[in-house]
Amino acid sequence: MLDYSALRAVAAVVQTGSFDRAARQLGVTSSAVSQRVKQLEERLGVVLIARGSPCTATETGDWLCRHMETVGMLEGELLAHLPALIDPAATRQRVTLHIATNADSLGTWFVAAMSAFARHSPYLLNIAVDDQDHTADWLQRGRVIAAVTSVEKPIQGCRRTSLGALRYVATASPDFIARHFADGVTPEAILDAPALTFNQKDGLQDRWLRQALGVDLGYPTHWLPSTQSFIEASLSGMGWGMNPIQLVRPHLQSGRLVELIPDTALDIPLYWQINRLVADRLAALTREVVVTARHHLSA
Amino acid sequence: MLDYSALRAVAAVVQTGSFDRAARQLGVTSSAVSQRVKQLEERLGVVLIARGSPCTATETGDWLCRHMETVGMLEGELLAHLPALIDPAATRQRVTLHIATNADSLGTWFVAAMSAFARHSPYLLNIAVDDQDHTADWLQRGRVIAAVTSVEKPIQGCRRTSLGALRYVATASPDFIARHFADGVTPEAILDAPALTFNQKDGLQDRWLRQALGVDLGYPTHWLPSTQSFIEASLSGMGWGMNPIQLVRPHLQSGRLVELIPDTALDIPLYWQINRLVADRLAALTREVVVTARHHLSA
Repeated sequence: MLDYSALRAVAAVVQTGSFDRAARQLGVTSSAVSQRVKQLEERLGVVLIARGSPCTATETGDWLCRHMETVGMLEGELLAHLPALIDPAATRQRVTLHIATNADSLGTWFVAAMSAFARHSPYLLNIAVDDQDHTADWLQRGRVIAAVTSVEKPIQGCRRTSLGALRYVATASPDFIARHFADGVTPEAILDAPALTFNQKDGLQDRWLRQALGVDLGYPTHWLPSTQSFIEASLSGMGWGMNPIQLVRPHLQSGRLVELIPDTALDIPLYWQINRLVADRLAALTREVVVTARHHLSA
Repeated sequence: MLDYSALRAVAAVVQTGSFDRAARQLGVTSSAVSQRVKQLEERLGVVLIARGSPCTATETGDWLCRHMETVGMLEGELLAHLPALIDPAATRQRVTLHIATNADSLGTWFVAAMSAFARHSPYLLNIAVDDQDHTADWLQRGRVIAAVTSVEKPIQGCRRTSLGALRYVATASPDFIARHFADGVTPEAILDAPALTFNQKDGLQDRWLRQALGVDLGYPTHWLPSTQSFIEASLSGMGWGMNPIQLVRPHLQSGRLVELIPDTALDIPLYWQINRLVADRLAALTREVVVTARHHLSA
């Protein structure tokens, strides 16, 4: 059996960011927290908490915290049936669910789903922006309990639900179009017109060029890792890029943005993958995600 | 002397994400690119490129690419004086400047500055969101050439310019206030009302509690690593949090958001730190940043 008072101390330090605040949360002295953490670290032979301002979890510490959250979720259920077990000192330790999402979902519809769920649930939510390469690993190892992802492959140990597609349009400002595409969106023009790219994993501009122009080019690009900044940069004539239709529709209607080539939208199907161990218990979460996604995404 | 044709091959693969596209950009065969990269890796005894879709730089590969960019910047100056040196095949290899910023600057005023600079400059820009702990290291080692940061300490090898302060207000929706702060924003209420926190390094809510209420508490919180989502979550009544005044002013005026305690704004001073080696050459960049920042930030 694991030493749960030590695990709880680690989780509290990570959650609050300091040994003092963890002590206040747990209703013990700061030196008791420090001792529990240290003994567990010595037993495991690995550092669990990077001491600093704030204190953060090391990778191993992180896994232990996730385990504590799942245990906390199970405890919550047990206590609903056996309220006499409730430790009054522990009532303020709410369970945090870790969920990953791709950045453009977070920038369009995902907050509405999370907010609707949070309103009627005891859980706190920790939303991480999906690093696509890590989604599968994070889900399998319990680092997150669910994810919105463009990864179609069913992830081991997860239930997958299709959410519909996020539609992207290639846009730029009229002024940018006049400067760079006066003679049309040709491969030659693309080689000279700066694009916008979210990050190294953003292949949307490439996919659009293949689909719309049938070319595979090394074009110049600026890099901007923020959904909202991407649109601002498009509006200000810094470059052309693929933007979610939800966010640019008003700008297309007002003429502040123009589609590079009409009717060449790109649909990216999205999926909700949730750990099977908690899927039934969190049916309400899946329901909010699916209802909100289907309202906002293309079928 | 370094083997610059090999370094250029590494930089092109990283920039374009594939050996094929790098070959097209350099005007050589794909196997020539592959061979140059491999020979350099063998000589250095370290992998420079993680082969994948897309190909990305390893940490060492990243340093080499940054070096190539600084060299490219120097070449650009030399060629302006000696145009006869220009290699026509190389004209499409534009230099990318790597710059870091904190997320809330990116979400408020920074894109305007970058866009104004990009319009009249040959450079492409790669904007990274500042991981505060790494800013100093990144700047010293040339991983970025400049950064907007709340780090006040002058960073070795850099020139520092004060930009003014980003003003934050503690806000929530009227509905959230009614549910959680009906009896005022007391320490007891704070212990039950979910806050919003950007990430582990976000100490703004703590600082505000100390300044406005004089307390240091372990309060419940949701986590949302996006400036725009933070505001959406505030609007939808998911939690209370510190938001940049620029972004919430219209919502405060329309009553969709309310200040938790009037006149308790928190000012976070920001600085522009730029590598001395390139500071003079990039005076126009510093000028755009300073002018735009001073227009948007508090003095």
